[in-house]
Amino acid sequence: MDVEMADIEKTIHTKENTICIFGTGDFGRSLGYKLLQVGYNVVFGSRSQDSTPLLPKGVEIMDYGEAAQRSSIIVLAIHREHYYFLTNLSHILNGKVLVDVSNNQKVNQYPESNAQFLAQLVPNAKVVKAFNTVSAWSLQSGLLDASRQVFVCGDDSNSKRLVMDVACRLGLTPLDQGSLLVAGELENYALHLFPMWRLPFFISIGLTAFFFFYCLITDVIYTSIKEGKDYSFLIAVSITNRVFPIVSLTLLALVYLPGIIAAFVQLYRGTKYRRFPHWLDRWMLCRKQLGLIALGYAFLHAIYTLIIPIRVYVRWWHNNYLISQVRENKTYEELNTTLAWYSDIYMSLGILGFGLLILLGITSLPSVSNAVNWREFHFVQSKLGHVTLLFCTAHTLIYGWNYFFDIHYYAWCLPPAGTLSLIIPCTVLVLKFFLITPCIDRKLTKIRQGWERSPKHRK
Amino acid sequence: MDVEMADIEKTIHTKENTICIFGTGDFGRSLGYKLLQVGYNVVFGSRSQDSTPLLPKGVEIMDYGEAAQRSSIIVLAIHREHYYFLTNLSHILNGKVLVDVSNNQKVNQYPESNAQFLAQLVPNAKVVKAFNTVSAWSLQSGLLDASRQVFVCGDDSNSKRLVMDVACRLGLTPLDQGSLLVAGELENYALHLFPMWRLPFFISIGLTAFFFFYCLITDVIYTSIKEGKDYSFLIAVSITNRVFPIVSLTLLALVYLPGIIAAFVQLYRGTKYRRFPHWLDRWMLCRKQLGLIALGYAFLHAIYTLIIPIRVYVRWWHNNYLISQVRENKTYEELNTTLAWYSDIYMSLGILGFGLLILLGITSLPSVSNAVNWREFHFVQSKLGHVTLLFCTAHTLIYGWNYFFDIHYYAWCLPPAGTLSLIIPCTVLVLKFFLITPCIDRKLTKIRQGWERSPKHRK
Amino acid sequence: MDVEMADIEKTIHTKENTICIFGTGDFGRSLGYKLLQVGYNVVFGSRSQDSTPLLPKGVEIMDYGEAAQRSSIIVLAIHREHYYFLTNLSHILNGKVLVDVSNNQKVNQYPESNAQFLAQLVPNAKVVKAFNTVSAWSLQSGLLDASRQVFVCGDDSNSKRLVMDVACRLGLTPLDQGSLLVAGELENYALHLFPMWRLPFFISIGLTAFFFFYCLITDVIYTSIKEGKDYSFLIAVSITNRVFPIVSLTLLALVYLPGIIAAFVQLYRGTKYRRFPHWLDRWMLCRKQLGLIALGYAFLHAIYTLIIPIRVYVRWWHNNYLISQVRENKTYEELNTTLAWYSDIYMSLGILGFGLLILLGITSLPSVSNAVNWREFHFVQSKLGHVTLLFCTAHTLIYGWNYFFDIHYYAWCLPPAGTLSLIIPCTVLVLKFFLITPCIDRKLTKIRQGWERSPKHRK
Repeated sequence: MDVEMADIEKTIHTKENTICIFGTGDFGRSLGYKLLQVGYNVVFGSRSQDSTPLLPKGVEIMDYGEAAQRSSIIVLAIHREHYYFLTNLSHILNGKVLVDVSNNQKVNQYPESNAQFLAQLVPNAKVVKAFNTVSAWSLQSGLLDASRQVFVCGDDSNSKRLVMDVACRLGLTPLDQGSLLVAGELENYALHLFPMWRLPFFISIGLTAFFFFYCLITDVIYTSIKEGKDYSFLIAVSITNRVFPIVSLTLLALVYLPGIIAAFVQLYRGTKYRRFPHWLDRWMLCRKQLGLIALGYAFLHAIYTLIIPIRVYVRWWHNNYLISQVRENKTYEELNTTLAWYSDIYMSLGILGFGLLILLGITSLPSVSNAVNWREFHFVQSKLGHVTLLFCTAHTLIYGWNYFFDIHYYAWCLPPAGTLSLIIPCTVLVLKFFLITPCIDRKLTKIRQGWERSPKHRK
Repeated sequence: MDVEMADIEKTIHTKENTICIFGTGDFGRSLGYKLLQVGYNVVFGSRSQDSTPLLPKGVEIMDYGEAAQRSSIIVLAIHREHYYFLTNLSHILNGKVLVDVSNNQKVNQYPESNAQFLAQLVPNAKVVKAFNTVSAWSLQSGLLDASRQVFVCGDDSNSKRLVMDVACRLGLTPLDQGSLLVAGELENYALHLFPMWRLPFFISIGLTAFFFFYCLITDVIYTSIKEGKDYSFLIAVSITNRVFPIVSLTLLALVYLPGIIAAFVQLYRGTKYRRFPHWLDRWMLCRKQLGLIALGYAFLHAIYTLIIPIRVYVRWWHNNYLISQVRENKTYEELNTTLAWYSDIYMSLGILGFGLLILLGITSLPSVSNAVNWREFHFVQSKLGHVTLLFCTAHTLIYGWNYFFDIHYYAWCLPPAGTLSLIIPCTVLVLKFFLITPCIDRKLTKIRQGWERSPKHRK
Repeated sequence: MDVEMADIEKTIHTKENTICIFGTGDFGRSLGYKLLQVGYNVVFGSRSQDSTPLLPKGVEIMDYGEAAQRSSIIVLAIHREHYYFLTNLSHILNGKVLVDVSNNQKVNQYPESNAQFLAQLVPNAKVVKAFNTVSAWSLQSGLLDASRQVFVCGDDSNSKRLVMDVACRLGLTPLDQGSLLVAGELENYALHLFPMWRLPFFISIGLTAFFFFYCLITDVIYTSIKEGKDYSFLIAVSITNRVFPIVSLTLLALVYLPGIIAAFVQLYRGTKYRRFPHWLDRWMLCRKQLGLIALGYAFLHAIYTLIIPIRVYVRWWHNNYLISQVRENKTYEELNTTLAWYSDIYMSLGILGFGLLILLGITSLPSVSNAVNWREFHFVQSKLGHVTLLFCTAHTLIYGWNYFFDIHYYAWCLPPAGTLSLIIPCTVLVLKFFLITPCIDRKLTKIRQGWERSPKHRK
C-alpha cells in the first residue's frame, strides 16, 4: 500500500492531473470521491458554493468558469435541462474535453442525444460521451462485481483517448464505440431492464399458467370427482413435471416457427427485398430468449424426472404394488421387451434432445457466439436446432403414443395436455420438411440470393 | 419511432453522409438497403445502369467514376477477379477509403489477400478490409442473433475509424485487427466451418462406433447365442451407457497424452528449440476440443446413469428379484459393508471427476479463459486436468475391478470394453507420474527454460 | 503452405520488417523464434556475442547499439535491474519504440512500474508495455490454448499501433489498455494466481472440514457407540451429501450478509460517504467467488441426491424393508398425503433454488455480465439472489422441520448439523426483511442517493 501511496503522491503534483466536475449532485460527488482515491486532483464547479459539507474531503469548489480553467477535462454531472448556461462559458470551454455522463428518464426522450445536443450548444468543445452506464452507487461501493465496461464515443479521438485513460485508472474497461452518432444508443442502453426478455417471459408465464390449470382440471379435479379421492398432492411435482416439458417443447417450437413463416412469406412474395410484418420481426428478434427459456424448463423437467424414485408417493405406490403382487401369489413374469424398448428409446431421445439443447444454449453465450463465424452460427442454430426440435418432439410422441390419442384418457372430452403440446412442434416439423424438399429449397435459395419473381411490381 | 425518423432526416442532409457501393450483386444490395435504413445516402456504381429494378428504393445508380466522386467511402462489393478496372479510376480513387468486403471460394486461394492485392492495384487509395464476415442474408434479415462482430483492418487509422463508425451505426461491433497484413486471415476466417473440431469429431465418432460394436458383440450377441435369449433391448440405454463413459475417458486421456509425448520428445532431444513432428502439433492444437467432447459424453453418461431406477427393464428385474426372494423365504440379510463402500466410493469419484470436468469446460469458455492469466490457465488446465483424469480413471477402475480382469467375463476371449478403455488413461497417468519425479522434472524444467544438452549439434 | 511461404518471402525483404530484441534469455529467444516463423527479420542485441548456439537459426546477433539501429522497434527482454545501460544508448534510441515485456518477482515490487521507470530513463524513446502476460513457454509451444490477449499500453498511439500489429501477426489479440499509467497493473496481473479466490476457497475448505467432522461425530461415532455397529460406510456418500448442502447454503448466505451489514453501517452512520471497515470491503469483493463455490457445492449435492436409489446400501435397506413388511403380513397402507406434500414441496423448492443458483452463476460469466447494464445486473444479483437464498433456506427448513428442532435427535446435546446451517441464512433473511420494510427502505435509499444525517460531523 505504501508503494501505491507514493505513486499517487507523485502523480498528484503533475500538471495534467486535475479533473473538473460541473455539478455537485450524487453522481458528481461519487465520481469525485473515486477520482480522488486514484490520485487525481478534483475541482468542482457549482452555481453556489454553499453545499460544501457533502463533498468529499480534499476537493476544491469554485464557480463554473474558474473550475473549467483548472482542467482540460470537464465532466458534466448535471441534467440536460441545465446545459444552456454552458453557452455563456463557451470562450473558456473552447478546445476542452467535455464529458457528457447524462442519462434520461425514458428511452428516446429527446429528438437528439444529450451529447449531440451538448456538441451543438458548445461547438468548439470536444464532446465525449462516457460513464453514463456506471451508476453512482457502483462507483461508491468500489465497483464490486458489476460490469466495468465504460462505453465511450466522440468525434475527436484524442479526447476519447484522454477519457479512456481516466476510465482505465478508475479500474474500468473503456470501450470505444465510435463517433458521437451512437451517443443516443448509449443513453438508451442504461435505461434497459431486459427489454428483449419481456415478451418471451410473458409468453412462457402465460403458457405455464394455461397448461397448469389444464392439467389441474384433467389430472386432479376430474380424477378426484370421478374417484372421490383427493389427488391434490400431485400438484407439487407430478403436475409441475407435466407442465414444464410441455411449455419447454412449445417454446422450442416457437423458436423455429417464425423462420418458417418468414420463408413462406418470401416464397409467396417472390422477393426478399420487402420488410416482414412488424409482429414477425419482433418475434424473430426474441428467438434466442425463447430458446433459453425452453432450456430452463427442460432442465427443470430433467431434474423433476430424476427425483421420481425418491419421492414419498412413488415409493409408497411401488411398495404397495410389490406387496400386493406377493399377496396375490403372482408368478414370475416375462419382461415385455417392446415396452422396455419403448421406455429406453423415449428416455434416450429425451436425453439427447436435452444435450443438444444445452449445446445450443452454450453457443448462444455472447463469448461463444462471437467466436464463431456466420456460417458456423447458422449451422448450429438452424441445422442443429431443428434436429433438437425433432428429438424432443419424438421423445414426447413416443412417451405419449398410447394415451395421447386414446379417447379413453380424455377427461371431459379434453385431450391430455401432452397432445396439445404436440400441435405446434409437429406443424413446425412438417412445414420444415416441406421447405427442404429440393424444388422448394431451390426456389427459396434463389430468392435469398437476391432473385425476384416480379421486380416490376415493386416500382 | 418518430424521434428516430427525425434524427435520420436531419443526418441525411449532412455532407459526409453518402456511401458509394461498387457492384449491384446480392451483398451490395443488402448492404445498401441496410445503410439506407440507418440514414445514409447510398450511391451505386455499376457498369450498366439497367439492373435498377432489383435495387432498394431511394438509391441512385450511375457509372463507377461518377459514383466514386459522390462519397469518400467506396465499398467494393465485387469479386476480386474484376478489380482490374479500378486502375483506370485511380485518379478518382486517390485518397478515398476503399472498403474491401470480398471473400474467396477457398482458404488461401491467392498468394496475397484480396485487400492487399487491391492496395497494390490502387496504391493511392486507403484500403480497409471490413464486413467480409457479415453475410448478405444476416444484413437483410436484421442481424437477428448472429455475431455482430465486424473485423476491420487497414494501414490508415483514420480510414479505419470512418469504416468503424459506419459499422457502429449499422448496429454492428467493429473490432480493429491491425494493419492490412492480417487481411488474409480475415478472409480465411469467413470460410471456416469448425476447422478445429473436425479431427476431434471424427476421432470421437470412430471411437463411439468401435466400442458400440464391441459391446454389441460381447454383451448382446454373445449372451444371446449363449443363453438363447434376445437381449437386443439393452441397446438403447445399457449399451449406450457403457459406450459413453468409455469414449469419454479415452478422449480425456487423449487430451493429456500429447503433452506427455511432447515432454518425452524434449527429454530425448535435449532441447526445446526444435519443432515437434507435424502430427503432434496438430494433436496439441485440438486438445481443447477433445476435452469438450469428453465432457459431453460424460454428461450423457451421468444422465443415462441417473435414469437407471426409472427404466422399465430395471424395475421389472428388481420386482422379480424381490418376489423371488420372498418366495424362497430368504431371511434378513446383513449388509455387505465392503460392497457398500465400493459402490459409494466409485460413485463419489465419478461425481467429483465429473464436477472437475465441468470446471475445466467452464474455464475453456472464451470469456473465462480470457479473464485468467497464463499462470492461472496453466494451473487449471494442467494440474486440475490431470487430477480429473486420475479421478475418472479411478472411478472406472474401482467400478470394474472385479470383472475387468476376471477371465470368466471374457466373451470369446474378448476382454470387457471397460478393460480396453483403461489402457490409454493408465498409460498417461503412469508416464505423468514418471515425469513429475523430482529428477526428471528438474531436467524438463531446465530444458523448458532454454537449456540445451548439445547446442553444437544444431548448428 | 507454399502460398504462405511466398507471402513470407516477399515481406522479408520489405524495409520495416526487422525487429530488434535486446537480451538473449529464454523469453527473448522464444519471441525471436516465433517472430522468425511469421516472417520478421530478427536482430538480437547482446553484451557478449558468444552465446550464439542457443539462438534460433537465421537471426543476427550484434552489440546493443548496432542492433538498435537496424529496427524501429526494440523489444527489451532483459530484467529491470539491467535497464541502466540504456541511458548510454539514448541517442540511438531517440524516437524508437521500446517494448517493455518485463515482469517482476512479486506484486508492487518497485514504487513505479518497470515501463514507467524505463520511460524516465530514456525520455526520448516511445515506451510501450506489451507481451508481459505471454509466457516464453506458450510462445514456444505455439500458443496452443491459453489466452491470446496481449495487453498493450503506452503514451504514444502510433507506437502502440506498431506493437499491436506485431502481436496480430503473431496470432495474438492485442488490447489497448490506455496510457503508461496502467503499466503497473499489467505487471502485477501476470503474477496473479487466483487472488480473489483465495479467501473464499479457505472459507469453504474450513466450513467443509468443520461440518464433516461434526457430522462424523453425530452420525457415525455417536450411532456406532450407541448401537455398537460400524456405520463408517456412510462416510463416502451419506455424510458427504449432508456436508455439501450445508456448506452450500452457508456460503450462499455469506454472499448476502456483507450487503446487509453494509446497509446497517450506512443506516447507523447516516451517510454513505465514509469507507466501510477493511474486512467488510474485502468480504464484499469476494461475494461472486463465494456464490460460485456455493453453486459448485449445490451441484454436487444435487447429483449425490439423485444417485440415492442406485446405491448398494439404499437398495439393501429397501429390499429388507419390503421383505420384512411381507413377512409381518402388513396390509395395504394408505398414503400419508401430508408426508407426500412435504417431500414433494421440499424437493421442488430445492430444484427451483438450484435452478436460480445456476442462473446467477451464468449471469456472472464475464461475457454475460458485460452484456447487461448496471440496472439489470443489480436486478439479477440482488433481487433474484435473495429469492434464491429464500428458496434454498425454505428447502432446508422443510426438509429438517421435524428433526432439526426435536431434542431426541440431539447426539450428546449437539444439534443436527442442518440446524446449525440454518442460523446464518435465517439471520440474513430476517435482516433483509427488516431492511425492505417501507420506512427503513426509504431512509436507506435517501442515504444511498447522497443524503447525510449530520453533514457537519464529517468536517
